[in-house]
Amino acid sequence: MNLLAQVRPCVVAMDGYAPGEQPRDGQPIIKLNTNENPFGPPQPVIEALHAAINDALRLYPEPSSREVRQAAAAAFGLDADQVVVGNGSDDLLTLLMRTFIAVGDGVAAPDPSYTLYPVLTQLQEGLFHAVPWQNQLDLPIEGLLASGAKLILIARPNAPTGHAVPLEQVAQLCAATTAIVVLDEAYVDFADDNGLPLMARYENLVITRSFSKSLSLAGLRIGLGFLPTVLAQQMHKVRDSYNLDRLAQVAAVAVLRHLDLFQPTIQAIRTERRYLTSGLRQRGFQVPESQANFVLATVPAGRRGGRDWCNDLKNLNILVRYFGHDPRLSDKLRITIATHADGLRLLEAIDLLMENN
Amino acid sequence: MNLLAQVRPCVVAMDGYAPGEQPRDGQPIIKLNTNENPFGPPQPVIEALHAAINDALRLYPEPSSREVRQAAAAAFGLDADQVVVGNGSDDLLTLLMRTFIAVGDGVAAPDPSYTLYPVLTQLQEGLFHAVPWQNQLDLPIEGLLASGAKLILIARPNAPTGHAVPLEQVAQLCAATTAIVVLDEAYVDFADDNGLPLMARYENLVITRSFSKSLSLAGLRIGLGFLPTVLAQQMHKVRDSYNLDRLAQVAAVAVLRHLDLFQPTIQAIRTERRYLTSGLRQRGFQVPESQANFVLATVPAGRRGGRDWCNDLKNLNILVRYFGHDPRLSDKLRITIATHADGLRLLEAIDLLMENN
Repeated sequence: MNLLAQVRPCVVAMDGYAPGEQPRDGQPIIKLNTNENPFGPPQPVIEALHAAINDALRLYPEPSSREVRQAAAAAFGLDADQVVVGNGSDDLLTLLMRTFIAVGDGVAAPDPSYTLYPVLTQLQEGLFHAVPWQNQLDLPIEGLLASGAKLILIARPNAPTGHAVPLEQVAQLCAATTAIVVLDEAYVDFADDNGLPLMARYENLVITRSFSKSLSLAGLRIGLGFLPTVLAQQMHKVRDSYNLDRLAQVAAVAVLRHLDLFQPTIQAIRTERRYLTSGLRQRGFQVPESQANFVLATVPAGRRGGRDWCNDLKNLNILVRYFGHDPRLSDKLRITIATHADGLRLLEAIDLLMENN
Repeated sequence: MNLLAQVRPCVVAMDGYAPGEQPRDGQPIIKLNTNENPFGPPQPVIEALHAAINDALRLYPEPSSREVRQAAAAAFGLDADQVVVGNGSDDLLTLLMRTFIAVGDGVAAPDPSYTLYPVLTQLQEGLFHAVPWQNQLDLPIEGLLASGAKLILIARPNAPTGHAVPLEQVAQLCAATTAIVVLDEAYVDFADDNGLPLMARYENLVITRSFSKSLSLAGLRIGLGFLPTVLAQQMHKVRDSYNLDRLAQVAAVAVLRHLDLFQPTIQAIRTERRYLTSGLRQRGFQVPESQANFVLATVPAGRRGGRDWCNDLKNLNILVRYFGHDPRLSDKLRITIATHADGLRLLEAIDLLMENN
């Protein structure tokens, strides 16, 4: 039997999203490839999780993550009905696609950006429009509008470049279209500003947040979506009824009630970002300013290309991210900002490799 | 701005799935409405969870739930590549739909059955064929084949009826079609047999399992899909990269390594099923034999209809499930089998209501 004949042709034809390598726990590896926080979750989160491990795990969780929505509303000055909770912000991106994109509908994003966007569009059999950043850094407003897309995705700060487009450009885009504009703020806690104040001005603006970066809980899969109530109601129909488990809900509430505890680590990462940017530049890497918890470093001209650097560092037990499939990124490494000690080890490893040619 | 104009028409038009009521934790309620296990998870699962609450929560989980797949393969005599892990078996049902069903493709299921099936089909803009059970209990093989569906979903034991079609009928269907046949075994641990032995004979057979019923972890959202490797590879492309969080993966492994610890509670529930079936029959309810951890009871003829019974019991702090939207089910209650004490309280409440007419 030709089983593949039963699979949707668009699924058979696609490659699927390739997540960064996740080594087994306990390996002696410096992990700078998937932008996790080098610091673990603070004590109130740990304590809340321990307290929630009991017989109640036999019961379904609250379907809509009500307490998480209420805590998020309180933390961010929204109404709980404007919040949808996802099993990671990837779940929210999937839900947005399945809520808005029918076969043939357009999805647009500045390019390069998060490589999951075109994959999710393919799964909806939508049309993905990759619109190059204007002057490498500005929002390509004209191009995004001209695409006719129903859904426009802007990662701010952007991955893998790390830059954040001026908020005023996002506002201009929202004002100029009836398309839904999604501001993917997975990395925004490391930036100088965020798009939340724009929500009151533009009802076609949707914001997504992640607990996987600044909030130290990549392992628990929690994301937040902020959007008008009328759209949230539609997304709830598409969502799996119990998409967030009990422990993730408990952890999310604890995080949202203790956001202040994350500020020291966020500041430490911003400080370390300056240090690592400077250290890489001193070694001949080109490193543009980043507003995220990673930098996109162009390797020095020479015999060793981007892929070689990635492999050579891996041999020294340091994982960085390489996007070799994209020619514009083939001489670049995306490097997560971690602790000062790990940054030092990375720079030492680079020195070692340079000495050995 | 008419925001709904941007939403897919099929989403705007649909009602969405309505999960059973989930009261706040700590309410003095006897919860017999969503088929959870009355017994909490055993100690090794609790201990594994406590041990996993640490700094590693800052890191992404293993994307494919590798250790869960390996433990499931060992427990069920499969290859780890034949296992896909879902954020609950609802996630797996969603993934199956998104893997196989394009716009206009057919999905068929015996009717009545799990009401999520038509909802998920609508989200794919597929065509749902509800084929009535033959003689109320047998698989309607001819009708399912005649539908031309690409995906055929059979809940076995079925919800809400509780009956399990003979496995030989499932085998006949698999042999007679190239469609993908999904055997939804969420309740199978309470039945006399399961479909796993059929997997070696029919490569178009997919089996899904849930940790939410017999395995006491509805709160953690874990499901397993068993299917040919070639199809599992396609489903992984559709799956969110990190769909199962670290704690759910840890709990799932602990459960799969200690399946024997669940046998006493499963046996207790089967014993209680006999007791409650008998008690309800003595009070004038019609209760067919069930192979699941619930019964579908037809209320006694009289002034009090199904909806009244459901509401009156709720006023006595007992939740049961009522499917009033379906005229065939309007005189029926689906009642979860719980502890002997809770079964007694239900029967006492019924006696009280009958005395008060």
